[in-house]
Amino acid sequence: MNRAETVVSAMLDAIRGVIVEHDVTYEEYAIAKQWLMDVGEAGEWPLFLDVFVETTVERNAFRGRAGSAGTILGPYHLPDAPVLDAPFELPRRPDEQGEPLTLSGRVTDAEGTPLAGAVLDVWHADAEGFYSGFHPDLPPGIFRGKVIADAEGRYEVNTILPAPYTIPHEGPTGAMVAACEWHPWRPAHIHLIVDAPGHEPLITQLFFEGSDYLDGDVAGAVKEDLVVRPVGGRVEYDFALAPAEVPLAAA
Amino acid sequence: MNRAETVVSAMLDAIRGVIVEHDVTYEEYAIAKQWLMDVGEAGEWPLFLDVFVETTVERNAFRGRAGSAGTILGPYHLPDAPVLDAPFELPRRPDEQGEPLTLSGRVTDAEGTPLAGAVLDVWHADAEGFYSGFHPDLPPGIFRGKVIADAEGRYEVNTILPAPYTIPHEGPTGAMVAACEWHPWRPAHIHLIVDAPGHEPLITQLFFEGSDYLDGDVAGAVKEDLVVRPVGGRVEYDFALAPAEVPLAAA
Repeated sequence: MNRAETVVSAMLDAIRGVIVEHDVTYEEYAIAKQWLMDVGEAGEWPLFLDVFVETTVERNAFRGRAGSAGTILGPYHLPDAPVLDAPFELPRRPDEQGEPLTLSGRVTDAEGTPLAGAVLDVWHADAEGFYSGFHPDLPPGIFRGKVIADAEGRYEVNTILPAPYTIPHEGPTGAMVAACEWHPWRPAHIHLIVDAPGHEPLITQLFFEGSDYLDGDVAGAVKEDLVVRPVGGRVEYDFALAPAEVPLAAA
Repeated sequence: MNRAETVVSAMLDAIRGVIVEHDVTYEEYAIAKQWLMDVGEAGEWPLFLDVFVETTVERNAFRGRAGSAGTILGPYHLPDAPVLDAPFELPRRPDEQGEPLTLSGRVTDAEGTPLAGAVLDVWHADAEGFYSGFHPDLPPGIFRGKVIADAEGRYEVNTILPAPYTIPHEGPTGAMVAACEWHPWRPAHIHLIVDAPGHEPLITQLFFEGSDYLDGDVAGAVKEDLVVRPVGGRVEYDFALAPAEVPLAAA
């Protein structure tokens, strides 16, 4: 059995097992069929999967990896954020609302050796819980940018505290959440991809102590190691990167 | 936990279980995400589900039901086929290819009492394996029609022997089948929905002894009771219908 057959067969068997175990009816099968079509038509496959499935892939893929904890990428990353100039501040509107926040710390390897020039790609929602590039009220580029660590691996970036937000819930993903009587909220968080040559990129998020929905993240992405406590508008957080996986052919 | 949460949670847990058990990677997650989007864009959700999932719903839903064996509806039923005139013959082209076949028998209830005026909605592929209403080479209505049983529940309809066919395999469903090194063939079969007032409609298919792919139907819809042996171009098959399920409120 090749890899595709192994995984596809296991998925089909798992789905068929639930149908039998829970006596899924023809009426429910018809509802599921329509819902799957609706998810595609609404363009919600990345949303649905990143909220309800990615955390399992992430926890499994990086179990036991050296360095700091990662978590899911989510659907709001944009690949071409600009490299900012020091002193680093994420782009904001002149009248931007929100509590000021300075995030700083060091980027090192898994043994604590500083990684000079490490790149931190940072993105987060505004104080209303909206992302630039996705919400029409925000100009492109707001709260997105790449920050560069100095020769000692130190970084510092000024921004604001983002707000909790709901995943989009007007469409079929939201209909599923409502039917299950779940809530569609994510706790406030800042996304980062921290990278340096010779190391595995660390995809992660920082959450805030005392934040609403910290214990009930709809995306299940919160890990204890990723919860920080701002003191006087400052958060210190160090990132340790695992060494790059050597391709088997080169080993 | 309401019904939606019960079934949705069980499905998500089953999918997450396969990810962990088979160490599904981020690369495979990305492939799956793209495939799910492709299935929607190709309009293949009914095809994929009816071929790979429906048989489980069908077997589970009708386990222990009185009367003849049913099987899956499939994606090629069209609801508005005309009632034909006796003597019954499914519409065909003047130059239609294919071996003549006469299908006849009785429609009764589960105790063997004839059901006068029972309706048999019949549809099948042509001798090339194509369905009217789906393949551009066939005029609409070919090999589709409703046949009426007489006062003793007897029916008879003339048609041709359909051919085995592949499910559409140019799209994402076919790509999955190919990746798994499966084949996309269904054995030759005739679809029927047999119905009479006061009874459960029987959705079924008849297959032919010795037909190619009888042991490897991609849709897993073959049941031993549904395999017939044409003798001299004739097949006799009796259909017994279960009594209509009385709604709980009226019981």
